[in-house]
Amino acid sequence: MTFCAEPVPGLNPVILTTIERVLTRVNALSQGGPGWTRPSYSPLESAAHAIIEEEALALGMEVRRDHGGNLIARLPGRDPELPPIWCGSHLDTVAEGGAYDGQAGVAAALALVTALRSTGVTPAADFVIVVTRAEESVWFPVSYIGSRAATGQLLAADLEARRVDTGRRLADHMREEGGDPEALMAATPPAPARFLEFHIEQGPMLDSTAEPFGIVTAIRGGLRYRAARLHGVWAHSGGAPRDGRADAVVAFADLVLAMDRIWEDFLAKGADLTVTFGRVSAASPAHAMAKVAGELDFCLDLRSEDVSVLDAADAALKAEIARIEGARPGIRFDLGQQSRSRPAQLSESMAEWVAGGAARLGLNPPRMLSGGGHDAAAFATAGWESVMVFIRNWNGSHCPDEGMNPADLALAVEAVCTALSGNAGP
Amino acid sequence: MTFCAEPVPGLNPVILTTIERVLTRVNALSQGGPGWTRPSYSPLESAAHAIIEEEALALGMEVRRDHGGNLIARLPGRDPELPPIWCGSHLDTVAEGGAYDGQAGVAAALALVTALRSTGVTPAADFVIVVTRAEESVWFPVSYIGSRAATGQLLAADLEARRVDTGRRLADHMREEGGDPEALMAATPPAPARFLEFHIEQGPMLDSTAEPFGIVTAIRGGLRYRAARLHGVWAHSGGAPRDGRADAVVAFADLVLAMDRIWEDFLAKGADLTVTFGRVSAASPAHAMAKVAGELDFCLDLRSEDVSVLDAADAALKAEIARIEGARPGIRFDLGQQSRSRPAQLSESMAEWVAGGAARLGLNPPRMLSGGGHDAAAFATAGWESVMVFIRNWNGSHCPDEGMNPADLALAVEAVCTALSGNAGP
Repeated sequence: MTFCAEPVPGLNPVILTTIERVLTRVNALSQGGPGWTRPSYSPLESAAHAIIEEEALALGMEVRRDHGGNLIARLPGRDPELPPIWCGSHLDTVAEGGAYDGQAGVAAALALVTALRSTGVTPAADFVIVVTRAEESVWFPVSYIGSRAATGQLLAADLEARRVDTGRRLADHMREEGGDPEALMAATPPAPARFLEFHIEQGPMLDSTAEPFGIVTAIRGGLRYRAARLHGVWAHSGGAPRDGRADAVVAFADLVLAMDRIWEDFLAKGADLTVTFGRVSAASPAHAMAKVAGELDFCLDLRSEDVSVLDAADAALKAEIARIEGARPGIRFDLGQQSRSRPAQLSESMAEWVAGGAARLGLNPPRMLSGGGHDAAAFATAGWESVMVFIRNWNGSHCPDEGMNPADLALAVEAVCTALSGNAGP
Repeated sequence: MTFCAEPVPGLNPVILTTIERVLTRVNALSQGGPGWTRPSYSPLESAAHAIIEEEALALGMEVRRDHGGNLIARLPGRDPELPPIWCGSHLDTVAEGGAYDGQAGVAAALALVTALRSTGVTPAADFVIVVTRAEESVWFPVSYIGSRAATGQLLAADLEARRVDTGRRLADHMREEGGDPEALMAATPPAPARFLEFHIEQGPMLDSTAEPFGIVTAIRGGLRYRAARLHGVWAHSGGAPRDGRADAVVAFADLVLAMDRIWEDFLAKGADLTVTFGRVSAASPAHAMAKVAGELDFCLDLRSEDVSVLDAADAALKAEIARIEGARPGIRFDLGQQSRSRPAQLSESMAEWVAGGAARLGLNPPRMLSGGGHDAAAFATAGWESVMVFIRNWNGSHCPDEGMNPADLALAVEAVCTALSGNAGP
């Protein structure tokens, strides 16, 4: 499925033009391999930020960077007393990620300002483009690093986290890419204001209901075991009888299917939950075809909009582990450190404001839940009135084939532009 | 459990001394990391062969190498008309393997000759120590390379196999370590004679019944998928609902538990079978905690003494795959190339001969089956009268903790030495 995006009649053509240019420019930067790879706090991420800086300066915006290395570009509004509207997303990617996750939200923010400039409209409140750092927690085992830095929520302990590929500290990578971790810890964050993020859905709901975009009312939180290990007993594949084995692969399979059944039960009871074992390795130099595996590494990602569901799923996990360890002598699980991100309720008044702009275009976007975590969750947790606009996408997300029609994003931007032009905001 | 081996009263002390010296010398050679790593057709394997050459020359044996790079050392017997007895094993290891698999059999062969020399006994038939190459099929996806080369069974196609760590051809590695692949293909193998191999059991049977050694009557064959792949659909861990997922990890877990149940059913019906998924990887750069896995690599090792059981287990595997692909849209298995090693019946007359030597020491070693494949299988397939003597071991095998008491091996060598000294052989 490919799209050749055409300008929609009656819509401001600079929106689509800007979106396509920004996506093309940013996506020229990648580490190589399939899809796009721009690690958090890497020179590639910084180069992507530099492109947005250039674009914002060309629009006459005031550009600065905060101590966390986030890029902040301001378009002054008519009334300096109104809380500003920040709008943006991130430009880092997972390894071998897609062309839209993060990038689309930054392109949309620039397209909004371009559209305002092209029509000569000055919005009521300051409009601030924010390009955050390090949203993808696959590089550092810490959630929402850049947006938590921007809102005064990053902890000194977080700065000690190691990047998985380099083994070096977040503080060091941040400093290398223009940040100042010491100053960040001492800084006073900006007063909570308003935050808006455009993002692909990363799920099939909008695509399956033929909706170009939707408005997000809450973001799922996560409970993760990033470095869990299962210990069994190494043995010879042909010599070890079935009865005496403690096979790490079989015990892991037992856990995976048990958690899949538990997930089904939770859904049947109406609870919101996802369960994913995204990374599994029994492929060290010690593993071989002719050996019963004595060890297996895995990670587990549980997500829900409801903290109590996460806690219940975690309890069910531990009960299954106890069952498996009891039933399979020689098997022992070590879940390692648990990390969490809190579910976030978004702003109903911001959602109404976006819906108002859409209504003026004759659109009625659905309200929906975000399965993925996003910078908007960090802003909401910091007390900002926050909203997300989801764009339909397909072929999954966090993968090279991630698909989105830029015209869908342009339509969503037009809706918000209409809302911005029409009144003082939410 | 550690042993400080003591000479057994009444037994020839040079047997234990030789075993311990040879094991110590050979095990000084390893690539590093836990345990012992000497890849097939590597300079480390060649260096281990050179140690045995030196030991054999010191015993006054005639030493040569065949075109496959196997080391062959001859002690002339009294009667050149009798078929010689070849005795030996291999010195390559799996990655991070143990101290005895292969090594013990070579040490035993040298200890036998040392004992004969120390007592002035010349055996009836020629006694030939053979140190084979590349017995461990984890390096090249080919079974029994050295022993098949020694017995005229290696195929030209096998020479094209690539070593998994270097990606280079068997022919090239063979040539580098002193072999001559072209001459090997043109050579006439020696006439089938008699083959004897001492080896650790690689299973718990002897240890659990407190038997120091046993006599092997058959060797299990194998049916392997060394490079199987499972294709699913990449998706976002928080965004993809349970219903639409094609999660490669969950589908793999389904297969593993299904094959474990099938194994249980086969055993209940009295069939001989082992089922092992020894290596599993959903840990490429594309895999991440926050992604549903769209791909998973694995290998599967089925073993049985009965070819028809292997065929039935393979059919059951394919039926399970069809069931899983039907039940889980988006999931597709690609088993890749199948490789096989044939089960081998060993020689009853050779077994009787070893048992006769043991009886003269007052011992009655049990008859048993070999779960692992061994060089003896290749010799038996080539029409050699072959037998194996298994030594009790513990802590599994193909792993750094692999345990064996050198005194158990010395006792088995003494039994064979008694048989050799007593008559013309089997």
